Amino acid sequence: MEDMTKHLSDVEIAQAHQLQPIADIAATAGIPAEALIPYGTTKAKVDVTKLPAPDKPGKLVLVTGVSPTPAGEGKSTVLIGLTDALNRMGKKSIVAIREPSQGPVMGLKGGAAGGGFAQIVPMEDINLHFTGDFHAIAAATNTLAALIDNHIHQGNALNINANKVTWQRCMDVNDRALRNIVTGLGGAVNGAATETGFTITAASEIMAILGLATDLADLKARLGAITIGYTFDDKPVTADDLEAAGALTAIMRDALLPNLVQTLGGAPAFVHGGPFANIAHGCNTLLATQAAMNLGEIALTEAGFGSDLGGEKFLDIKARFGDLNVDGAVVVATIRSQKYNGGVAREDLQEENLDALAAGIKNLERHVENIRKFGIKPVVAVNLFHSDTEAERDFMRQWAADFDVAYEEADVFTQGGAGAEKLAQTLLDHLDGTSTQLYDPAEGVEASIETIAQEIYRASDVQYSKKALKDLQYLKDNGWDTMPVVISKTQYSFSDDPSELGAPEGHTLHIREIIPRTGAGFNVVLTGDVMTMPGLPKTPAANTIDVNDAGQITGLF
Amino acid sequence: MEDMTKHLSDVEIAQAHQLQPIADIAATAGIPAEALIPYGTTKAKVDVTKLPAPDKPGKLVLVTGVSPTPAGEGKSTVLIGLTDALNRMGKKSIVAIREPSQGPVMGLKGGAAGGGFAQIVPMEDINLHFTGDFHAIAAATNTLAALIDNHIHQGNALNINANKVTWQRCMDVNDRALRNIVTGLGGAVNGAATETGFTITAASEIMAILGLATDLADLKARLGAITIGYTFDDKPVTADDLEAAGALTAIMRDALLPNLVQTLGGAPAFVHGGPFANIAHGCNTLLATQAAMNLGEIALTEAGFGSDLGGEKFLDIKARFGDLNVDGAVVVATIRSQKYNGGVAREDLQEENLDALAAGIKNLERHVENIRKFGIKPVVAVNLFHSDTEAERDFMRQWAADFDVAYEEADVFTQGGAGAEKLAQTLLDHLDGTSTQLYDPAEGVEASIETIAQEIYRASDVQYSKKALKDLQYLKDNGWDTMPVVISKTQYSFSDDPSELGAPEGHTLHIREIIPRTGAGFNVVLTGDVMTMPGLPKTPAANTIDVNDAGQITGLF
Repeated sequence: MEDMTKHLSDVEIAQAHQLQPIADIAATAGIPAEALIPYGTTKAKVDVTKLPAPDKPGKLVLVTGVSPTPAGEGKSTVLIGLTDALNRMGKKSIVAIREPSQGPVMGLKGGAAGGGFAQIVPMEDINLHFTGDFHAIAAATNTLAALIDNHIHQGNALNINANKVTWQRCMDVNDRALRNIVTGLGGAVNGAATETGFTITAASEIMAILGLATDLADLKARLGAITIGYTFDDKPVTADDLEAAGALTAIMRDALLPNLVQTLGGAPAFVHGGPFANIAHGCNTLLATQAAMNLGEIALTEAGFGSDLGGEKFLDIKARFGDLNVDGAVVVATIRSQKYNGGVAREDLQEENLDALAAGIKNLERHVENIRKFGIKPVVAVNLFHSDTEAERDFMRQWAADFDVAYEEADVFTQGGAGAEKLAQTLLDHLDGTSTQLYDPAEGVEASIETIAQEIYRASDVQYSKKALKDLQYLKDNGWDTMPVVISKTQYSFSDDPSELGAPEGHTLHIREIIPRTGAGFNVVLTGDVMTMPGLPKTPAANTIDVNDAGQITGLF
Repeated sequence: MEDMTKHLSDVEIAQAHQLQPIADIAATAGIPAEALIPYGTTKAKVDVTKLPAPDKPGKLVLVTGVSPTPAGEGKSTVLIGLTDALNRMGKKSIVAIREPSQGPVMGLKGGAAGGGFAQIVPMEDINLHFTGDFHAIAAATNTLAALIDNHIHQGNALNINANKVTWQRCMDVNDRALRNIVTGLGGAVNGAATETGFTITAASEIMAILGLATDLADLKARLGAITIGYTFDDKPVTADDLEAAGALTAIMRDALLPNLVQTLGGAPAFVHGGPFANIAHGCNTLLATQAAMNLGEIALTEAGFGSDLGGEKFLDIKARFGDLNVDGAVVVATIRSQKYNGGVAREDLQEENLDALAAGIKNLERHVENIRKFGIKPVVAVNLFHSDTEAERDFMRQWAADFDVAYEEADVFTQGGAGAEKLAQTLLDHLDGTSTQLYDPAEGVEASIETIAQEIYRASDVQYSKKALKDLQYLKDNGWDTMPVVISKTQYSFSDDPSELGAPEGHTLHIREIIPRTGAGFNVVLTGDVMTMPGLPKTPAANTIDVNDAGQITGLF
């Protein structure tokens, strides 16, 4: 079970492990040699056009979680342990999860490749550059920005209004100083002074496009359909208008190929695409999920944060665009996180507190209810921690019986796959879901937002800023009002106020701005104070990351 | 010979070619399998710590050129044809050249991997991302920038003067709008408003550090020694002060490994590091050059632009730091370029013009003289073009005899290695150089600049701006006055005025600014109007780059 007193760090466990050659992992997965493009001996890209097409794809399982807390939930950890458990039991299970973002790795968060004995490896490569996908996205994004400014500088034949360019640059670095900048200073030779900013790469539209593209031709069409801003007479301008789609596709060509690595248990794992779920759509790429389904009996995939963020977006965006049925779901929780939601301070989470657990478990209940609204029967997985008491575990079991939800404990952190076999069996017994979407985009953006706000966030009201109302009108004027919505909201609360823990209801959702993403095919709805470029903390993780004399990276968590 | 009416583009020739597996190329080179880290099937990184150490390293040949013109010189093309010629003749020759920068690929310049039947392949990969080295450099550079701004934002314990932060971000995109920017706008939560800018990655200090690092420990020491700016009491602040060296080394670890590809003739080629020679030190990495010398009988390496830029820097910086002897040199010229230097307009270069050739050849003479000043016997290689006339070729031969310089024509563009065998033989007869450096850095920056200005640029005078004089004082105050100098100067002229073609002398060199690069170990001396961030042209190459239905990249030149 997860033990804060553990002696080995994740990176130490990962580096002590003897990895199998990626060619062997590919063979296990059923990937033909001609589809494998090695990146070193333990990573590869996979040309999915060369994969065999099965008669019937495997079952798809969505792993989501409760609202995250500083206590940590271990969603990826449970997912990875679960795939190892399924494979131990003879069920061919393949993982499809997101790539970590290097910005947060240098900040607070540490790595994002599982933990303990339930990790994907090589974890230090996965956390740093990996196969270069994020860098390719930034290169494409920033090349398009340069083409826009250059077009304006060189005569502006398209009549672009520089004050209405909505395209922002991006970078996979946590850098608050780049949120709001002025470019083009120093005279006419350096372009025109322009207010703009950078987002983190995970929040960029090209990340979303990578996540949703079905093949190279679709990638190119989506890149061309990006709206970069408006003309002086308020007509949208696209990347195609700038003749940029071919070059952007060339820059993104290799990034479109899913990345293959392995779990500590030796199972194949696709790790591809990495939009955050609080500021973007929050799932790994559609191509990776489809590859996992085509190669395995069970495909395990995740969506970032809780059911309200990545979960809702997976089902309403990715499953819709990819025509995916979600057969089952796992909601990962911890006893600690539910006590935190019940009002216990972080430093007191080690202490037994049944009253707080009883109060906080409303958060878990809400996530279970949310998943059920999509036609899926979720299994609750409690990721055990060293501090969990027998009484707390008994309480949870009784709660599950009363709430009538499938329930298992998992101890994958110390046991790996062996610690999730009961969970795996219970999951196998709950794979008969027929998943639906929650809203019909044809009814318009306001209706879509209203439905999510009511059904998932349990808000009683939606308020639009003046800017957002203007944005709504833009959407209608340009025929974009029927694209689905990606609501950008804090991950800590069902409301847009991160301090409202537990299961708030009756609150007001505040819409700040709506940005059409005509390449990705959805509208991004910004609420509350959610920022699309994080900052670094007072003592960044970068201060402790190092390389030892053997060339091994140390200090990753 | 190079033919502007050619029917096949470089990318078409490259894509029609059947590449050998990179493992076979490595075996040809003598690289043991355990040192090879494949990136796909035709690219690899090489762990140089696992290479055998020879009793005696191979001979080192520096390929440089005349002052570049819009007519094109084909320096890389000749170098690649020459290695194929040497290998055809049974002399094991290995190439070490720079990686192309993606920014210019999207702009004017097209690819930088040779041309015609003298190319390195896969050219489209090499020109786009390659193995991610440039992106790693940008990630390290921009992470350091974020750590600086975050340190100031979080209380500024080091007392850094935000107005004296000299560290700039970088990006491998031609984007004039990023030359001068203001960051940190929008209130205190987004940091403090700061005037700063981006350079292109090729001009960054971390690119220079990658180029000069001798191993991982040296890389880390150099990264830590970077000066990022000054405190309020004018003391330098380093990356080590920010505890950033470990994280930057982790980000750069894989980038330090030289990249291996192949020529169309099937010869091994290291392509690693890519500083421009007009704004940086202009050579591939020391590690790649050493690997080529350790594995081959002849290592062919290049330095960007002419003898005045990359040539001088190779000899005074890289050869000094790496303790390299340069055994021979090739000065690549074209008849067209010498006519251009003699005053012929670009559109008239197809016409025979012996008078202009006689005038313009002063440029070639100057480059030959410059190389001789370093103790090396250069061979002049004329890269033949379709438009060169018999009379012009006769003139050149006679000139070489009169000027007493080894001379051969090469036709590698249409013939590949077969077109450079005579050049190869002549080169083999001139490999007895004992190379020297031109100046002693211990005499101070002003003396070093003076020597280069007089001996290489043939200036009669050096003028310093007020800013440069202040910078000089800083260098002295901080003990940096004895680091060698990298003079940033236009590539088109020996002077700092790009319109002064031919072989100007008696001019004044204008020093605008001097930037200490304490990580790289040299001072960058900015002259004239040289910019460290290029812009895009009116019709960028990006407009024609595309990906076809087979997934092949088209429209690269």
